[in-house]
Amino acid sequence: MTRVVLLTDFGTADGYAAVMAGVVAAAAPGTAVEHASHDIAPGDVFGAALALSRYALLYPEGTVHLVVVDPGVGTDRRALAARIDDRCFIAPDNGVLTLVLAGASRVRLVAIEPGAAGGVAAPTFHGRDVFAPIAARLAAGEAVTAVGNEIHDPYLLETPVPVAEGGAIRGEVIHVDRFGTLITNIPASWVRRADGGGGSTVSVEGVAAGALRRTYGDVEPGALVALVGSLDLLEVSVRDGSAARRLAAGRGAQIEVLNLPGEPV
Amino acid sequence: MTRVVLLTDFGTADGYAAVMAGVVAAAAPGTAVEHASHDIAPGDVFGAALALSRYALLYPEGTVHLVVVDPGVGTDRRALAARIDDRCFIAPDNGVLTLVLAGASRVRLVAIEPGAAGGVAAPTFHGRDVFAPIAARLAAGEAVTAVGNEIHDPYLLETPVPVAEGGAIRGEVIHVDRFGTLITNIPASWVRRADGGGGSTVSVEGVAAGALRRTYGDVEPGALVALVGSLDLLEVSVRDGSAARRLAAGRGAQIEVLNLPGEPV
Amino acid sequence: MTRVVLLTDFGTADGYAAVMAGVVAAAAPGTAVEHASHDIAPGDVFGAALALSRYALLYPEGTVHLVVVDPGVGTDRRALAARIDDRCFIAPDNGVLTLVLAGASRVRLVAIEPGAAGGVAAPTFHGRDVFAPIAARLAAGEAVTAVGNEIHDPYLLETPVPVAEGGAIRGEVIHVDRFGTLITNIPASWVRRADGGGGSTVSVEGVAAGALRRTYGDVEPGALVALVGSLDLLEVSVRDGSAARRLAAGRGAQIEVLNLPGEPV
Repeated sequence: MTRVVLLTDFGTADGYAAVMAGVVAAAAPGTAVEHASHDIAPGDVFGAALALSRYALLYPEGTVHLVVVDPGVGTDRRALAARIDDRCFIAPDNGVLTLVLAGASRVRLVAIEPGAAGGVAAPTFHGRDVFAPIAARLAAGEAVTAVGNEIHDPYLLETPVPVAEGGAIRGEVIHVDRFGTLITNIPASWVRRADGGGGSTVSVEGVAAGALRRTYGDVEPGALVALVGSLDLLEVSVRDGSAARRLAAGRGAQIEVLNLPGEPV
Repeated sequence: MTRVVLLTDFGTADGYAAVMAGVVAAAAPGTAVEHASHDIAPGDVFGAALALSRYALLYPEGTVHLVVVDPGVGTDRRALAARIDDRCFIAPDNGVLTLVLAGASRVRLVAIEPGAAGGVAAPTFHGRDVFAPIAARLAAGEAVTAVGNEIHDPYLLETPVPVAEGGAIRGEVIHVDRFGTLITNIPASWVRRADGGGGSTVSVEGVAAGALRRTYGDVEPGALVALVGSLDLLEVSVRDGSAARRLAAGRGAQIEVLNLPGEPV
Repeated sequence: MTRVVLLTDFGTADGYAAVMAGVVAAAAPGTAVEHASHDIAPGDVFGAALALSRYALLYPEGTVHLVVVDPGVGTDRRALAARIDDRCFIAPDNGVLTLVLAGASRVRLVAIEPGAAGGVAAPTFHGRDVFAPIAARLAAGEAVTAVGNEIHDPYLLETPVPVAEGGAIRGEVIHVDRFGTLITNIPASWVRRADGGGGSTVSVEGVAAGALRRTYGDVEPGALVALVGSLDLLEVSVRDGSAARRLAAGRGAQIEVLNLPGEPV
């Protein structure tokens, strides 16, 4: 059973998401249509890229990921089909595949040919008229090279890079999740836990978040806690609360880490 | 694989939507239960009707659409089963099928007989006790005429009609979507794009939204733009923003269109 | 077709929910992954328990319910697998199964052995690294006793109990649903409808909600109405409105019922 997995910023109440599901279901009847999310903030390409990078390659080989977070619909941005590590992707060429591509081994990218989906596309809803029909073709087993010409210059988001200087690491918050956790761009390998007051100490916009911990249970309910999250990135949370609300911090907030000597734990 | 597609105003957090999915899954085991939306605003029958009309007939023939936006549950409103252009529908008789019926060719409507679902229905949750069990029977292949007696007088919503007088068209906003786009009741055939300052010029509650454009990319980010949307209706958006917020406009806001001479584009 | 049904407080926008769906899909390919809800309020174990108790046993036998509302992730709380009335459950041992267990006939509970999921679990995302892989094993037909050792002391939530004294019943609101309905802990069998001014009369924090009714249609739009809801518990609603907003009442609000003589209806 091939799965087509949708990721959009459409919400569901207007019926746009169901339009895409219906188009896929009609064109590729044996396919299971699944919904990763339709709650990406409107136009938040980076948020979609981050979510997609979490789950895309966990799905079985052959899965088709249909991604429509497309503020540039109706401009001349390209539409992409891709085969990345044995999964297929359909998406606008706006950088939403950046983080999946960053970790991939085998990549083939094509620019979808105008007309490959048949018919005329409404200039405001390529999800219905281009992306979903092409997804159905890939779900039915066609190769990505059957729907367009190979390209090697996908548009990529520039992601902020942390810097280390003079014993301090400076990074920033790249995403705030539903729990108010601040996810930073500082990788796990740059921080460490240590005994005796050593190891990494974290602050957010100058507010101390304490030493690096292993998990939420290492602090009292309501306390700030810095730890390595499930993406292997430094995160700052409030146990049973919201760090974003506590610190009035969002995407772009400055993170500083001091690494002090100490016995590793 | 038959699909039963749910559309409700239940949200998901209370478990009501999963109740219906579970009832269908248990009564029609080979069926795929899909979720179009549970985020229709509470009691918003017109919003549900509009969403349903977008996607219902895009699903494969034989699909069963199970619609429960039912502020009148527990009154004497009827429950309907319908076969419309080779898809099945189960819904309260409150007008939620109005827009699907408006575009349909082949229609058979029945009023579901009390008792057709077996057992006694809780007076506050017909979704569980009437609509879902009947949906499962239709998904299993029963004809709509097996669950009730044919009727010819479904309750229909009165939708506002645009008027043309003295060179001006007056219509109104019928829906605001997740992107803050104002969807109007003015059909594409009543407006046109033209060169040289001609064609249609649109205003919302007296505020100018400019000449009719083809797509978002025809204006600068942050600008108002009037265009024909994917429902073939006039829409007013803000590129990368929300027209609803910019204009403090919602359902019922007045739209005026002036059609001036000019070369069609 | 075995179904794995997810219930979490993850939302969908961050991709955590899709991570779990992808892990299950990859490990148990023939399985249908369904989503009951990801909109449980963050950390609201009781809300999840109530939702789960509505739908869990309506799904077909063999269904696997994967529940991750887990504010204690990373503490030493246990992870549970259970077979309850022929459905399987995977959940943290934090009381989220309390209400399902309360109504169950046949129960087998095990504490999932560390390592049963293979690999090392990230201390902040057991949903991905423990719960989903174990759910896939149960979906593939393994017995719950294959993934851990039987226990008999699950953590149970203490649910508030209503009291009857001196002709009055005192209970409280245990949940507010999407429609603003106040769901109380007073069972249907403690209240009754009667003619002639008799039967049960309900108040919320001292505000009269009138005599017990059968359904919403028994009062005018906008009026408060007390009735027995689909869980066979006393509920207080506003017809076509929100009782929670009208009364500024939430979980824990005090309910008083006076039962007066009168002819039953």
